[in-house]
Amino acid sequence: MTKIAIYPGSFDPVTYGHLDIVKRALKIFDRVIVAVAHNAEKEPLFDVPERVELLRRSLKGLKRVEVDDFEGLIVKYVKRKKTNVVIRGLRMISDFEYEFQMALTNRKLSSSVETIFMMPSESYSYLSSKLIKEAAFLGANLKAFVPPFVEKAVKFALQRSKT
Amino acid sequence: MTKIAIYPGSFDPVTYGHLDIVKRALKIFDRVIVAVAHNAEKEPLFDVPERVELLRRSLKGLKRVEVDDFEGLIVKYVKRKKTNVVIRGLRMISDFEYEFQMALTNRKLSSSVETIFMMPSESYSYLSSKLIKEAAFLGANLKAFVPPFVEKAVKFALQRSKT
Amino acid sequence: MTKIAIYPGSFDPVTYGHLDIVKRALKIFDRVIVAVAHNAEKEPLFDVPERVELLRRSLKGLKRVEVDDFEGLIVKYVKRKKTNVVIRGLRMISDFEYEFQMALTNRKLSSSVETIFMMPSESYSYLSSKLIKEAAFLGANLKAFVPPFVEKAVKFALQRSKT
Amino acid sequence: MTKIAIYPGSFDPVTYGHLDIVKRALKIFDRVIVAVAHNAEKEPLFDVPERVELLRRSLKGLKRVEVDDFEGLIVKYVKRKKTNVVIRGLRMISDFEYEFQMALTNRKLSSSVETIFMMPSESYSYLSSKLIKEAAFLGANLKAFVPPFVEKAVKFALQRSKT
Amino acid sequence: MTKIAIYPGSFDPVTYGHLDIVKRALKIFDRVIVAVAHNAEKEPLFDVPERVELLRRSLKGLKRVEVDDFEGLIVKYVKRKKTNVVIRGLRMISDFEYEFQMALTNRKLSSSVETIFMMPSESYSYLSSKLIKEAAFLGANLKAFVPPFVEKAVKFALQRSKT
Amino acid sequence: MTKIAIYPGSFDPVTYGHLDIVKRALKIFDRVIVAVAHNAEKEPLFDVPERVELLRRSLKGLKRVEVDDFEGLIVKYVKRKKTNVVIRGLRMISDFEYEFQMALTNRKLSSSVETIFMMPSESYSYLSSKLIKEAAFLGANLKAFVPPFVEKAVKFALQRSKT
Repeated sequence: MTKIAIYPGSFDPVTYGHLDIVKRALKIFDRVIVAVAHNAEKEPLFDVPERVELLRRSLKGLKRVEVDDFEGLIVKYVKRKKTNVVIRGLRMISDFEYEFQMALTNRKLSSSVETIFMMPSESYSYLSSKLIKEAAFLGANLKAFVPPFVEKAVKFALQRSKT
Repeated sequence: MTKIAIYPGSFDPVTYGHLDIVKRALKIFDRVIVAVAHNAEKEPLFDVPERVELLRRSLKGLKRVEVDDFEGLIVKYVKRKKTNVVIRGLRMISDFEYEFQMALTNRKLSSSVETIFMMPSESYSYLSSKLIKEAAFLGANLKAFVPPFVEKAVKFALQRSKT
Repeated sequence: MTKIAIYPGSFDPVTYGHLDIVKRALKIFDRVIVAVAHNAEKEPLFDVPERVELLRRSLKGLKRVEVDDFEGLIVKYVKRKKTNVVIRGLRMISDFEYEFQMALTNRKLSSSVETIFMMPSESYSYLSSKLIKEAAFLGANLKAFVPPFVEKAVKFALQRSKT
Repeated sequence: MTKIAIYPGSFDPVTYGHLDIVKRALKIFDRVIVAVAHNAEKEPLFDVPERVELLRRSLKGLKRVEVDDFEGLIVKYVKRKKTNVVIRGLRMISDFEYEFQMALTNRKLSSSVETIFMMPSESYSYLSSKLIKEAAFLGANLKAFVPPFVEKAVKFALQRSKT
Repeated sequence: MTKIAIYPGSFDPVTYGHLDIVKRALKIFDRVIVAVAHNAEKEPLFDVPERVELLRRSLKGLKRVEVDDFEGLIVKYVKRKKTNVVIRGLRMISDFEYEFQMALTNRKLSSSVETIFMMPSESYSYLSSKLIKEAAFLGANLKAFVPPFVEKAVKFALQRSKT
Repeated sequence: MTKIAIYPGSFDPVTYGHLDIVKRALKIFDRVIVAVAHNAEKEPLFDVPERVELLRRSLKGLKRVEVDDFEGLIVKYVKRKKTNVVIRGLRMISDFEYEFQMALTNRKLSSSVETIFMMPSESYSYLSSKLIKEAAFLGANLKAFVPPFVEKAVKFALQRSKT
């Protein structure tokens, strides 16, 4: 039976840390769906179609991966996709706690869905989309953190948001 | 001598975790005052009278409990109530740190007031008002987290805030 | 293709928390091998064959599960079993850190092996074999923590170790 | 009704941090029983009667405090004393986790007993009996950490344990 | 060779905790530059010139200290100042994680810059500019947290921000 | 004035993580003394002269570094060396807490000595001498963790300790 794992997130924008998790997940699962959440409350740098597009370009050439977006509860999306596995990357303690809260809440909402946690390479253990955006805002070179076309898109989007 | 404990918080809205702490506190103290803070900075879902009302309905039937609200420093409120005990629930690490900072700050502001920490049931160790509001916003069923009339009020308030 | 996951540990003795993780793993993987480590340094309450036996009885009736034991590095055992997935339960922060260190060390030793982390039910989030042994030593009833025949075995082994 | 709180621990030896917690507890409870645990597994510096004696001297002059020792489960001792409150000092994160595990385990063993956590003064937030013994072993002056007669006793006991 | 350390931050406003770190840094380095960051995203209570002014008054009389402000990346500022040491105070766990993320990000941006961490006195281990502003907003006396003229400035600024 | 920093530890054995910290410290200080502690309580794999020797070989070619050993309190050793700076590497949370406790205890013992914390490269953020010894005991290849001659020495010492 084909085993599908859902990797949900904001991906605003995708980083090398996210890509590392996707590659690790592909070693275990037959297919991985990277699912961009419509998250009404935050002020994203990129809108959902842009984030999906950046993910697609970043994952180009990787077979068995699909990029999608979803609205509403992740547990409902997981069921629509006829699977029961959610993947989350765990980097640091704060992650750990928030992720556990989310996973336990999801479990109450649907007992069939399981969240599993994977560790990115230690080279990316400190990376976060938020820090990257802050660094870019201050004029940093992002080449150690994101693919070149993502860096370009971030700088363009920061210009756009200023005007 | 009657021993009174103050249980302050935002309670936006009250959850089963809060109710669990109140019941545990009643095993130790003669009276518990649940005190809703007027907190000018946040964007609450419910205003203070609504939060007080939801707490009152949730605690109906429990003797020796009172629901109140307060403005300003908790240490001053505690003294006005002629007691010296503040109760806080401790769920997770992030709680732990913030709560300790608050408790130490309060101690500097009034050395007579003591903060004690109590643990909710492990069934509620992951619950937070914030997560519940997020889940409700995404269409989740809240019956595992809050009393039925609180769920109804949350859904109504989310509608209200959209319009 | 049959997907096999290895769940290694000391299991001295198995607890309801371990059993919960096995059941969750079976929702994701085709087969789960629970693998008792020969760990030369600790002073176990049970020897390896006893721990294997208690696990077997606890998991009786669960199809697709196998109990085994191994010596040496877990990454080598995983390869001998022709798989690449190690499961670890994550309960608390201290777990988190030690587990991450282990997982990163294992990754350096074999880049093909991935460790994934799963959360037990919050009812078992505080359980540890060590605490259970301490409680048993002090005369506690273990029925909330382990199956009845494990409780009996623990009490017998504690008697044995005293003489 | 007289409200009694039990403050259990190893107290090997008592530190200024422990004494600080006792004084804070006396602001809330009518009586505090400091209870030295017979803990078979550790290698204590002082035996139980010595630890009781050092506590008694340290707490001399404080009314409403009693020093005692107990064997077996703390929850059973608490019931024998006809109360339901256990006090634990919380200093740091590692404390936090271990204490929570203990408290949750005790709760399973007796649902009537509640553990409450109190914070020592930030001046003592880093103190531990273990660190003090290590420092004394290396020749440190302990006057910032323990009462003078405890320092004397520690140095004497370290001499004794060398021979 | 003169060894210069940069101590960057928001300092909105300076607290006794910050001053403690500066004094400790002066025991190690020949000169310390306290550098107020222009941080576009936050809503500060004080603008940068005000924060610089409060720092200057607080540090009056201390030789070998300079107060400055900077825009853009800290690593670039550090190089402009012809040094390679950044100092950060570490108070609590949440600090620890955020600081480590920042330090690792800065290291990727410039491998020559080293961040070192120093601990404030345990008396200030809980202090944060944010908590102090919250307490002031609720009417607290700040004398345990900041110099008198900073307290005055905070109260004035809070009045100003209300109107 | 020559600025000397002391980097104390067990170094049982030295790892690439320790060497990374030494190199970073040399960017800030004029001289670094790596100081092996005589630590009576632990069961080391190597005795102090062996650990000193392995450090010396590992640091060969690095100018401005000295390897030494010391007995008793680190604060006294620091003073004998006529300096006031202790360096400690910070890897993970458990480190963080233990290190802070140590640093605060040392501060009480000598207010002139300052401990500063430095971060190893994220590539070594998970490394510990203890984990390395465990891995070696189980037959692991240590080339990612320690220099080749340290690996050889570890394997030899493990053989030795078995007989």
